[in-house]
Amino acid sequence: MEKYTGKPVGFGDVEVTGGFWKKKQELVERVTIGAVFKRFEETGRNGCLDAGWKEGMPFRPHIFWESDVTKWIEGAADFLRKHRDAALEEQIDILVDRMEKAQDENGYLNAYFTAVEPEARFTRRTDHELYCAGHLIEGAIAYCEATGKRKMLDIAIRYADLIDRVFRIEHSASFDTPGHEEIELALFKLYRYTGEERYRMLAEYFLDTRGTSERDGTYSFADLEHMQSHLPVRRQRTAEGHSVRALYLYSAMADMALLEKEDELADVCSDLFENIVNRRMYITGGVGSTHRGESFSYDYDLPEYTAYNETCASIALAFFCRRLWLIRADRRYADCAELALYNTVLSGLSLSGDEFFYENPLAVDPRRTAFNDSRAQGLREHLPILQRVKVFSCSCCPPNLIRAIGAIGDYMYSFSGNTVYAQCYMNADAEITLGARRVVLRQRTEYPYDGNVRIRTETDGDYTVALRIPSWCDAYTVHINGEEIPAEAEEGYVLLARTWSAGDEVVLDMVMEVKLIEGNPQVPDLCGRAAFTRGPLTFCAEGVDMPGVQLRDIRVGNAGEYAVLEETVAGERMPVLEGKAYVRPEFTELYRPCRESYREITLRLIPYHAWANRGECEMTVWFLKKS
Amino acid sequence: MEKYTGKPVGFGDVEVTGGFWKKKQELVERVTIGAVFKRFEETGRNGCLDAGWKEGMPFRPHIFWESDVTKWIEGAADFLRKHRDAALEEQIDILVDRMEKAQDENGYLNAYFTAVEPEARFTRRTDHELYCAGHLIEGAIAYCEATGKRKMLDIAIRYADLIDRVFRIEHSASFDTPGHEEIELALFKLYRYTGEERYRMLAEYFLDTRGTSERDGTYSFADLEHMQSHLPVRRQRTAEGHSVRALYLYSAMADMALLEKEDELADVCSDLFENIVNRRMYITGGVGSTHRGESFSYDYDLPEYTAYNETCASIALAFFCRRLWLIRADRRYADCAELALYNTVLSGLSLSGDEFFYENPLAVDPRRTAFNDSRAQGLREHLPILQRVKVFSCSCCPPNLIRAIGAIGDYMYSFSGNTVYAQCYMNADAEITLGARRVVLRQRTEYPYDGNVRIRTETDGDYTVALRIPSWCDAYTVHINGEEIPAEAEEGYVLLARTWSAGDEVVLDMVMEVKLIEGNPQVPDLCGRAAFTRGPLTFCAEGVDMPGVQLRDIRVGNAGEYAVLEETVAGERMPVLEGKAYVRPEFTELYRPCRESYREITLRLIPYHAWANRGECEMTVWFLKKS
Repeated sequence: MEKYTGKPVGFGDVEVTGGFWKKKQELVERVTIGAVFKRFEETGRNGCLDAGWKEGMPFRPHIFWESDVTKWIEGAADFLRKHRDAALEEQIDILVDRMEKAQDENGYLNAYFTAVEPEARFTRRTDHELYCAGHLIEGAIAYCEATGKRKMLDIAIRYADLIDRVFRIEHSASFDTPGHEEIELALFKLYRYTGEERYRMLAEYFLDTRGTSERDGTYSFADLEHMQSHLPVRRQRTAEGHSVRALYLYSAMADMALLEKEDELADVCSDLFENIVNRRMYITGGVGSTHRGESFSYDYDLPEYTAYNETCASIALAFFCRRLWLIRADRRYADCAELALYNTVLSGLSLSGDEFFYENPLAVDPRRTAFNDSRAQGLREHLPILQRVKVFSCSCCPPNLIRAIGAIGDYMYSFSGNTVYAQCYMNADAEITLGARRVVLRQRTEYPYDGNVRIRTETDGDYTVALRIPSWCDAYTVHINGEEIPAEAEEGYVLLARTWSAGDEVVLDMVMEVKLIEGNPQVPDLCGRAAFTRGPLTFCAEGVDMPGVQLRDIRVGNAGEYAVLEETVAGERMPVLEGKAYVRPEFTELYRPCRESYREITLRLIPYHAWANRGECEMTVWFLKKS
Repeated sequence: MEKYTGKPVGFGDVEVTGGFWKKKQELVERVTIGAVFKRFEETGRNGCLDAGWKEGMPFRPHIFWESDVTKWIEGAADFLRKHRDAALEEQIDILVDRMEKAQDENGYLNAYFTAVEPEARFTRRTDHELYCAGHLIEGAIAYCEATGKRKMLDIAIRYADLIDRVFRIEHSASFDTPGHEEIELALFKLYRYTGEERYRMLAEYFLDTRGTSERDGTYSFADLEHMQSHLPVRRQRTAEGHSVRALYLYSAMADMALLEKEDELADVCSDLFENIVNRRMYITGGVGSTHRGESFSYDYDLPEYTAYNETCASIALAFFCRRLWLIRADRRYADCAELALYNTVLSGLSLSGDEFFYENPLAVDPRRTAFNDSRAQGLREHLPILQRVKVFSCSCCPPNLIRAIGAIGDYMYSFSGNTVYAQCYMNADAEITLGARRVVLRQRTEYPYDGNVRIRTETDGDYTVALRIPSWCDAYTVHINGEEIPAEAEEGYVLLARTWSAGDEVVLDMVMEVKLIEGNPQVPDLCGRAAFTRGPLTFCAEGVDMPGVQLRDIRVGNAGEYAVLEETVAGERMPVLEGKAYVRPEFTELYRPCRESYREITLRLIPYHAWANRGECEMTVWFLKKS
């Protein structure tokens, strides 16, 4: 495709009809939306929206509470777009009424800075004020799109207009750019939704100004890297600082590069992507190696037990990838989005739908956690929790999961000119407008558990279907109407250009092998080790499947020795890998001369996203490789 | 030997005449004693002893400063015992005069609590008051022993008597036992030196009371385990809390078990030793896995990069071992003392003699350190430094090294009845009084670099020489006057009972092989890895010897493939191991399917104690083992 010509196909034009994501969407619709709402009620988040809190009352609003709620509204709205639901809408309408009540005449709207510190408005860069505004805008657009109700959108627009005046026109705030990015991508969305140039200009003002203003400070404990303000954005070539902030920023930068067809910014985005996937990303698509600042660290620093890998960061990584594939066709963007979504993002959600991980480590050792928990507070290290919980004090991830799964159709297709790109495979129908032509495609697949994908065209016409061949796929066939066709991939896509008739069927068969993956020798933690993948899924071992085995002592053989079984794990059918592996017999000494003696065990691996659904136990993704 | 019949042979009766320790003693005498004194002058530690500090003056005394100085006095005195030195004695006499000036009429002596907070005397368990008293006592005994000058001893005795009255008789302090143990073993020493029962009673009072008093608190950030006060000492069966405090305590407990022939306490000491060596000790004899509380952690927790392994803790571990071998003959006590002394303790001192490590990690990665140093203070992790420094704000280790090396002869022999136990081999002459008999033994050896030990008797008589066969030694021969004799070891000792004549020569030849050691499968960090040892020495690799090689990616072969070379490292002759090893060729991807492709390199290993003398670079002790 020609650079900058990509167009998104939004989830509004995609109907998930079955397969992997249908089950997840049903779970979220049935359980998660209500569970998160209930927790937000109980913890005072919903109530605080009216800015009616007074000293002495319970539930003093926190600076980012309202973003939790507006992000929940966005997620709920993504589901309402498919199925209206009066009860759910009533819950949202009450929240919107509270916002209306809390909004100032001049448009200002922030529960914390209205109820708790009104004198501090627009004075503290670090306090998430513009981040909350961004989520308000995104929630408002989603709710209007889903229901046609404009009240929340009008509220958001009034506030956006105030922010535009204060920041872009008058420079009357005490700082120039958001400490926690998010509003930039929200403003591009608002620009696209309303057509109002000023939102684009404000977003671009924030991006252009970032890293150039002496008025833009950081936390007392942190550095400017923490909020990506150490350099002008066009000079940022490595992923630094708070990983969620970074990836929301990079997403907005990609929006701008696309909109303005700006090579310099597009190159920056490309460099950032390369830095992430070649140096700073876990094999689960997790990013942000350290809890210190919830941040990226340095090249090849990928510790396992302390991997932070915030759920939101991998959601934001998928956002970034989805924008990059509009700038330039490269299958690696969808590879990366799938890695993030199928592994770290889904690890954030329990199979029961009502419990969440904020952090998604690559290994856990319950002994370390138990010791740590037993220590006095002042002697503890920060460790990820072992089991998901119902709510966090910082509860951005649960509503982010709702919107990520609600809008999963966003990742299915893009198009450019006359070509439809099949980016991430899923069982869904889509209706795509290519210029004047309407194209309807029905995709049926059990992906990511199976590599067979059938796409039926429901409309006639000349256009190209570009099938992504994922990087993990070494062998595949393409059949059209039962006939195998030669199918060489270009930049990772097989281009099927023809005159389609309604009822034509493309079958893509990707051989989905078990693979043993090694990490770069520069990653100290991964030397001598291997991880199992199959398709876009990363697998892990849990102690509950191998009682009495020290998981870290397991030596694995070659990939071909492991069979794929379909089994039930914590009540859900999924592929499980099974095969022989080896551990050392136990001994009592702490140190002894090496003996090359091993006993055979049956290694059992489950998809990483399903870990921690069967009680606390050891878990690991990487294994010793017999060499 | 019969339990509880062991007697120490002190370094006063041992003259190091050559070999490994002679060089170290000469270095300390020539460089370290003066270097530490100079730093203590510059940092105000020496000056503060007169308790003349007033608000507004520089060098506000710190609660543990004076212990640094009295420990330095002890170390310097250990050398004066061998060679009187008027200039050095003058330096000490000035310090003693300051103490005399600072001492209260009632005997109280503490620079901090006299100059800074006189009203807080004997009220704060956590503030090292009794710890300072312990080091005062030890320093005073050593200086009196070396020079016959009693002034410091009299000062210490006056203070000890006050402490006895306040704590044991009147219970008039605000707490009952020391927060930082040390005085207990010092009081046993004072009891042995003066014969005064009250010092033994006070030491035993502190031990018996520990963990039983509700008046004994801890730091606000810590737990009672931190200062071994969570249980009465006889119920402490695992090594917990601050590792130096713990091992000073356990040493005093062993003193008491021996003195009182108390089985319960002896069993506790034995359990603690087993817990340490079988669960909580690094292969370098380092203990205290975590910087959090400078403490022991939990069984099998032996992280490499963050290993704390304070130099003082390994010195204290050697103290404990030396006491245990008096209770019961078991070669493992001397094995452990050697491991600690030859690896972690000596790692604490630069080959130049004037720089020190407080922490002794098992691996360092300069990339991690550089990133960490680049971060804002609030985002940093605690990491060991990469190069030794001249002084620490908490500078216990440098003077502790002086006294450990000055008194190294303490570890050479013990005796019981008619048997002399050769515990740790060194090139030295000793004079031992077995009942009415004087025995003189001349030992010549290049141990630990060579396994040949020659012992010549200089006195006639019937007695037994018990030669320790270290656990690492699989093959050895014993010759007496050139004739090989059958030499079965019992509990690790070959007992040579005969009528000796002056001039008889025993030659013990221990085959000192390169060994590859594995760690227990329960240690996550050591699975799949191996470390090199030879004799009591642990070896390590440094990046400077293998430019361009990722040390963590090195796969090692079998022990037999590594040759021992005598080479010069940072100006000093020492054994270096060399042989083939394998690393993966570099590649650019972060992850890729495993390829079993390796390139050969020459692995070069130096003794661990000599690391970090050639500039900052990667270091590691454990290697991947080809399996």
